[in-house]
Amino acid sequence: MDGTTQPDARTRLLQAALRLVRMKGWAATSVDELCLAAGITKGSFFHHFKTKEALGVAAATHWGRSTTAMFAAAPYHAPADPAERVVAYIDFRAALLGEDLAACTCFAGTLVQETWASSPAMREACGDAITGHAATLEADIEAARPPGADWDAASLALFTQTVLQGAFVLAKATGTIETARGQVAHLRRYVGMLLQGER
Amino acid sequence: MDGTTQPDARTRLLQAALRLVRMKGWAATSVDELCLAAGITKGSFFHHFKTKEALGVAAATHWGRSTTAMFAAAPYHAPADPAERVVAYIDFRAALLGEDLAACTCFAGTLVQETWASSPAMREACGDAITGHAATLEADIEAARPPGADWDAASLALFTQTVLQGAFVLAKATGTIETARGQVAHLRRYVGMLLQGER
Repeated sequence: MDGTTQPDARTRLLQAALRLVRMKGWAATSVDELCLAAGITKGSFFHHFKTKEALGVAAATHWGRSTTAMFAAAPYHAPADPAERVVAYIDFRAALLGEDLAACTCFAGTLVQETWASSPAMREACGDAITGHAATLEADIEAARPPGADWDAASLALFTQTVLQGAFVLAKATGTIETARGQVAHLRRYVGMLLQGER
Repeated sequence: MDGTTQPDARTRLLQAALRLVRMKGWAATSVDELCLAAGITKGSFFHHFKTKEALGVAAATHWGRSTTAMFAAAPYHAPADPAERVVAYIDFRAALLGEDLAACTCFAGTLVQETWASSPAMREACGDAITGHAATLEADIEAARPPGADWDAASLALFTQTVLQGAFVLAKATGTIETARGQVAHLRRYVGMLLQGER
């Protein structure tokens, strides 16, 4: 393998964790499989991470950082109107659903559903990734919030993540991403109604 | 143990599966733990179920049937107006959230998120449980649907499950059921808006 053209071993392990966990969950993903997928030895794994849990925490943090960079550079920030930016975010998420059920998954949502009771460290890292992403929407929602509305911007920002997480589960349950698309359309309609008639 | 006062071995295994999987997921729950929790031998396990997967399929079906009976007997069917019945269903789900994060989990949603790619049989059993429950709301939603609405009853019925599944994940991610309550309140507001001003 050529170290000048591929990520380092630690990054390959993080990428392997994201890919395998989104496909089959955390507990079903073994350290041996992670090493095989990353092209490293078990000794190298434990050089980079003392435990599988430490990899899980690092992968949730890596997931949060890499998705933050991707969303920061996305075109939904372009409209001048804050309500339009929020709706454009939802349209962007709908476009991201793509055609691959494995990619129709949140790494942090899957990991936390399995490990919330057993690993405070993984729970916290997943929570930070999910709530940190939701928080990036708050300023636009607050700016578009009608005066006197009986909901707050932080809660509606979280609701976008609630619907996406649920849509990922429903896509698996029904075996088709079309289900997720239909569910995100409800989110778009609701947010549009709350932000006063935005489409 | 007294066979006249507790469920039979098969039922105890199904109940143990529901409890353990809602706490820590499917892959992390071993056959040994299931036997210990059900108070049976490994020989008895494989007498009742040929494989762990067969137990998973049976548990998803058992989950669907037992929740169907509970919801059929619940008080939200009482109002004469179909829109009020749909809103009462959401209020009932909010009340069910309770205080226990482990119970703030859908067995089928957790199982399908882990096994959709590896087990068509478990995926289908989970899908049937989730979509079958959603379908029980369709007639009331259709009866309350304003003429010419740009959404269909089946899709909105599924949306109730999407928000609940997502709210379960967000409760874990934030470490508190209050998050789920706030998210179900958004579902109630949206459904009320669509069904023309029902509160």
